[in-house]
Amino acid sequence: MKAQEAASRTCARWVGVDVGGTSIKWRAASADGATVDEGRVASHPASVGEQLRCLGDFIRSRHGEVRGIGVVCPGVIDEVQGRVVYAANLELAGLRPGELLAGDSGIPVRVGHDGRAAGLAEGLLGAGRGARSFVMIPIGTGISAALHLAGGMWGGATFCAGEIGHTPVFPDGEPCACGQRGCLEVYASAKGIARRYAAATGQDVGARGVERLLGADPLADEVWATAAKALALELAHLTLSVDPERFVIGGGLSRAGDTLLAPVRSELDALLAWRDAPSVTAAQLGEEAGRWGALALASMAAGSTDHERWSR
Amino acid sequence: MKAQEAASRTCARWVGVDVGGTSIKWRAASADGATVDEGRVASHPASVGEQLRCLGDFIRSRHGEVRGIGVVCPGVIDEVQGRVVYAANLELAGLRPGELLAGDSGIPVRVGHDGRAAGLAEGLLGAGRGARSFVMIPIGTGISAALHLAGGMWGGATFCAGEIGHTPVFPDGEPCACGQRGCLEVYASAKGIARRYAAATGQDVGARGVERLLGADPLADEVWATAAKALALELAHLTLSVDPERFVIGGGLSRAGDTLLAPVRSELDALLAWRDAPSVTAAQLGEEAGRWGALALASMAAGSTDHERWSR
Repeated sequence: MKAQEAASRTCARWVGVDVGGTSIKWRAASADGATVDEGRVASHPASVGEQLRCLGDFIRSRHGEVRGIGVVCPGVIDEVQGRVVYAANLELAGLRPGELLAGDSGIPVRVGHDGRAAGLAEGLLGAGRGARSFVMIPIGTGISAALHLAGGMWGGATFCAGEIGHTPVFPDGEPCACGQRGCLEVYASAKGIARRYAAATGQDVGARGVERLLGADPLADEVWATAAKALALELAHLTLSVDPERFVIGGGLSRAGDTLLAPVRSELDALLAWRDAPSVTAAQLGEEAGRWGALALASMAAGSTDHERWSR
Repeated sequence: MKAQEAASRTCARWVGVDVGGTSIKWRAASADGATVDEGRVASHPASVGEQLRCLGDFIRSRHGEVRGIGVVCPGVIDEVQGRVVYAANLELAGLRPGELLAGDSGIPVRVGHDGRAAGLAEGLLGAGRGARSFVMIPIGTGISAALHLAGGMWGGATFCAGEIGHTPVFPDGEPCACGQRGCLEVYASAKGIARRYAAATGQDVGARGVERLLGADPLADEVWATAAKALALELAHLTLSVDPERFVIGGGLSRAGDTLLAPVRSELDALLAWRDAPSVTAAQLGEEAGRWGALALASMAAGSTDHERWSR
């Protein structure tokens, strides 16, 4: 191996930053995706723009050879303009996180939605690998979807595609904080499962607690079964309208594995009388998906295909 | 104008064929989309393949200068291989309608799904014009959708995208002929509206008859309102998951105009508490959409951009 090649394998070429309400996680990777440097800082919601500016200066001072920066955020992200349109818990609206990180360095940047970037990463390195189309669905406090169609992530006309947490799976059902009724996440998010069990029993044991009570507590069984039914209804809607090759279920609740996925598959099969269901699998990258997605955006920002050759 | 240019404006350059259960409609158009020749023959479901072979010979003998042929069919169409996978009322499964029409002429062909081709046409010449993304929904005996996303029609992993007639808008609702329950088209197709009114009153007046009774017959009002609610629920699902810029409602039932679209818009607004609804407009091409779509496929088969300059 020539000295120059060896250097390019160990130098930080791509930087990925995952901005969340709790922390800002970043990673610098070499051309082949290996981690060269990484870190995490607590988010200061009111001054997160200034945090990104400082973080960009810090990373660029350590890694002079960076060729691209990707950054992913929650909320509504204008991925064309690289601008945050709306973010619930962070003072980011109107800001351009990519420019804050790049400063006046001229390094190419790309800004993405955290959920879609996680889907992008699952497609490159995880459970979506090899699928021409798939829908990645992280289930945690809320539920969203990243639609990988026709070779790319589809963000929607108003950058709001994938807000499936608020689809009316049970019309005129239980009220949701969003102002609508019968929303998927009322029944099937970790928060929804915990809330519905607490409403029935007076005990707040969390979604994990409900999972532990399955088979021993009929009320836990019922709450869990309703969550699976709600999820299967949404997957049926997506199957019939979008027809993806695969569903990839992620987020905290996916740690339940087949305890969740088996009843979802079974309900989905029952809802699709005349066609086969797409496969329903668990995500593989966990919390790392966002940073991997941000790194892939960094490579894409520079017009590179490095990210297509990465493996974990 | 040079003689050659004048000739190319009047010669048949593109041929579009729309294969349906009742009739096969075709049109030959010049480079600028003007009709040069057209026709319609009754479908013979059991020998439709042979019909297409004869029709191809006939058209090619009349128009020696044809440069591309597009053909659209109902059912499940493998648009990559140009092959019919499944068609309910026509003996077409396994056949390649494009090759039947082209014979040994070597003329480039492209085969499409009739609903998606109609959507393609509405995007080029009709109610989808100018939208970066839209969903076209023809409502007749059944209900389907054509998803125009990211610059093209999305057909799905198994060429079954857009089967929204069988989405479970009312979980565990009324049974559908497909074997599922609560399907959209049970409530909101022309057939479903007629059937539900007949079930309530014993009178089969058709969907048009139910429309005429609105305001005078509370049962007609109720059936119509439920259809609008079912449609709005499906549009809410599509808005939140796919986020299109526009909905284009076509098919026979769309002739009801705002009698249908106004309550659908109002229900959709009510279902979307926290975001604006996409616009909901009526299709413009009517029954001609299929043939226009087939003509566009003919132009695309030859790698031409003629179709991008057509107007009605």
